[in-house]
Formats: sequence, structure tokens, C-alpha cells
Amino acid sequence: MKKNIALRLSYLGTNYHGWQRQDNAVTVQGILEDSLKKLTKEDVSLLGCGRTDTGVHASVYVANFRTETTIPVDRIPYALSSSLPGDISVLEAQETDPGFHSRFSCLKKQYVYMMYVSPFDHPFLYDRAYRLGSMPDISAMRDASKAFEGEHDFAAMRSLGTDVSSTIRTLYECAVEEKDGLISIRMTANGFLYNMARTIAGTLLEVGSRRIEKGRIPSIIANKDRSAAGPTAPAHGLYLTGLWYEKEAIVCDNVFTGALG
Amino acid sequence: MKKNIALRLSYLGTNYHGWQRQDNAVTVQGILEDSLKKLTKEDVSLLGCGRTDTGVHASVYVANFRTETTIPVDRIPYALSSSLPGDISVLEAQETDPGFHSRFSCLKKQYVYMMYVSPFDHPFLYDRAYRLGSMPDISAMRDASKAFEGEHDFAAMRSLGTDVSSTIRTLYECAVEEKDGLISIRMTANGFLYNMARTIAGTLLEVGSRRIEKGRIPSIIANKDRSAAGPTAPAHGLYLTGLWYEKEAIVCDNVFTGALG
Repeated sequence: MKKNIALRLSYLGTNYHGWQRQDNAVTVQGILEDSLKKLTKEDVSLLGCGRTDTGVHASVYVANFRTETTIPVDRIPYALSSSLPGDISVLEAQETDPGFHSRFSCLKKQYVYMMYVSPFDHPFLYDRAYRLGSMPDISAMRDASKAFEGEHDFAAMRSLGTDVSSTIRTLYECAVEEKDGLISIRMTANGFLYNMARTIAGTLLEVGSRRIEKGRIPSIIANKDRSAAGPTAPAHGLYLTGLWYEKEAIVCDNVFTGALG
Repeated sequence: MKKNIALRLSYLGTNYHGWQRQDNAVTVQGILEDSLKKLTKEDVSLLGCGRTDTGVHASVYVANFRTETTIPVDRIPYALSSSLPGDISVLEAQETDPGFHSRFSCLKKQYVYMMYVSPFDHPFLYDRAYRLGSMPDISAMRDASKAFEGEHDFAAMRSLGTDVSSTIRTLYECAVEEKDGLISIRMTANGFLYNMARTIAGTLLEVGSRRIEKGRIPSIIANKDRSAAGPTAPAHGLYLTGLWYEKEAIVCDNVFTGALG
């Protein structure tokens, strides 16, 4: 009987074409599967907790795989660390229930969208937060963010490209914060449609720059018209920061110092 | 009469062979001079505030150059931003006194050495802080750090390679801090010998791991024997964070968010 092993990992997305394995591009799944194959001598397939786009980061990510390896589970992160690049880390491995699935067993997810205000690219942030030329109206963004909370049909807040049976999701939290010139939007939901987190961020930025009136958000959501919402905010500002499973919640929303926070 | 223009900049050192122009390597000075030559159509030479080694970062750096350009000085950072890579930014340009020299006019410098504690490389920190496998004895490091403060002959705390007329320097501050798993050593002096900041950091880490007894620091300094001190700590943990000139002090010791802090 194969063991079902769940890995907790973290990665900087800058150098990868997203999570999902592709034939002609370097992806996080591809790098990790190659390392696991070398380690276990098995044809390992990883089941990830979700796709992330090119440039999107994960302070928290979970992937599981089935294996007959006799390597002690708690040694796997150490064994992988020598073959992984510095921008992908496996921080923990544990044997889970046979039925555990990183994506389908996930009850709730959290994303944080990071921005900073500067007329120039910031050498320490340029690939890990979206630069705004001037300070947006944080108070208006905060008011508008509340309209996204609750159960809604989020059809206006997604990109087409993946088939889903329903576009209804529950956003438990949509919180805008500003501190020391860094602005964050924290979104927690029972699930996210394709590009939903980046579209909500882009729409809130339109409110912040007064191109969309903050009171219009409910009707933009209700009309299910993608073109009335703001643009999809750039990938490099987005972090997957939290995953909730029945037995464990993994949250790390202090994105710049990751799991240390 | 040529104008003397001082640039305030910031860079992530990971992708560069240090500050100083070299024939067969990509350096910060080389990249900047090339951009300035394109902009001014002059054969610009930059005078930097100091050399930094491969992989060392600068949240603060000053370099000046002489030019006859008619481009308004305050437009220079904007004009340069389109041709510079994301990890080098010119944040300000100002015309200074004819005699101003980024290095010789500098009265005081500050470096911060950053560390984190983890069994694994951290994807968001691996190239910008030194990883320690276990928590060092912060209290012992703090006690030992005080022995470095004051005026000393720092011959034991440098690497050979540059000629200096004197190895006596005054260290105004050597402070060890720990917060949320991040450890920093902040050093402020009237000047630093080659590798002095990294050797002090490496020596304090030997104290932290109890390989050097904290009470031995004064005799290690007094004996001027480099081999009795600790190893040179790796370059990627080091940041130039402060420069003091007669008319202006530029300090940014919140290294991960740079000039925002």
C-alpha cells in the first residue's frame, strides 16, 4: 500500500512559469517532481493545492504524492534541500490520510496582494510587489473592499480559461492595509476563480485612483460583466499565503520574511 | 564649468560582481556608467562611496560624476529608470559642491549584516540574508559586540588586498538585534577596512555558537592576528545602509523594504 505524503513548501515565483508542469517551460511542479524522482527512484506525480500563474509567489503551498519509498518521511525535506534551487523550499513532509488531496481537501485559501508607492522600481521589491506611482485613496479602497465580502457570483472577477461548474464563491475577508508605504490586500475565500484575486486587486486599485467610484462595486459584481471591473493586477504582487484543511491551517501572511513571520 | 552631480541609489547585489567596474564581469558601476553615457552622450566616470563585494547589497549608496549635460538634474533619475534593470535604482540626483567626493567626503558609514534561523533555505531570503541552522546565543553576541565599539586597530578584522595607511578605525556602534527569527548586526564607523564588517559578523557568530568565548574579543583585537578572529561571513548577508556627509545623512536600515522603512 502506497503512503500518501503531503509536502509543505514555499517558493518565489519570479523565475518560474507558475506551478503547473509544462513541456517547454521551467515550473515549480516540474522542478519538484524531478527532485522527488531522483530521491525515490519512482515516477512521482505531485498533486498541488492549486495553479499559480507565472511570477506569482507562495509563502505557503501544499502538494501531496503517493509513494512506496522507505525514506523516513521527516528526512524528505532535508534530502530534497540539496537538489532544489534557493527559491523553492520544502519545509515539512508528513504522511497523511489515504484520501487526502491537496486541492480537493482544501476548505479555505488566502491570498495577499502586495504594493508599494514609489516613482522608481525598488531594487528589493521590484519582482515581489506591484509599484504604484502615487498613494491611492486607502480609505476608499477599504470601503470598497467590504462590498466583495460574503457569498457572491464572482463571474465579473475572473478570467476565462478554465471550466468551472459554478462561479459562486464566499469571500470571508477582503482587507486593505497600509503601513510604512507598503499596501496589502488580504483575501480569504472558500475558493478563487481563475485570476479572481488579481481582478479584485485591480478593481480596488481603480477605486484607489478614483477611476471607479467605490459605491459601484455591488452593481459591478451583480452585473457579472468582466469589462466593468478593473484590470487584472500584475502577477508579481500576488502571494498565496494561507491554506485551511480539516486538521490543520497553514497561514503566513508576513510575505517578505515568509515562514518566519 | 562642469557640474558635480551626486546620485543616491540602491541595489540588490545578487546579480553583480560588486560595485567596481571590471572588464569581464557585470558590475553596478559598469551598468550605471553605461546608462549615464547613453543619457548624457559624455564619457562619464562615476566616483562611488566605496567598493562592495560580489553579492553585497546597498539600501543606500552614493556616487557622483562631473558633466556638462543640460538635462535638468531632477529629471536624471526618471531618465535613467527606463534603462536600468529592476535591481538597481537611482532614487535622487542633486548638484553638489565642486569638491564633493562620494568616498572622501563621507564622514561615517553604516553596514547591517542580516541572518535568519532555519534548517532550510528560505525562498524569500536565500540571497539576501545568511542562514543559520540554529539560534545562536544572542545575549553572548550582544555582550561581545560591545568590545568592538570605540577606537581600535582593527588589523585582526580585515582581509588583505587593499593598501591602507592605517588600520585604526572608530566603531561608534555595534548592535545585535533579534526579532521574529531575523537577526541583525548593525555597525557604524568612521570607515571600514576591507571585509571588516563581514569579519566582525563572522567573529560574533563564533561567539554565538560558543566557538569563541565572548570575553576573548578584546585580546583578539589587541593581538592583531586575523587567524584568531572568526571567518569572513558570506557576502549575501551584508547591506550598506547608511552614509553620513557634512550636509546630509542617508540611512535606511530597514533592509528588506529598503527606502520605504
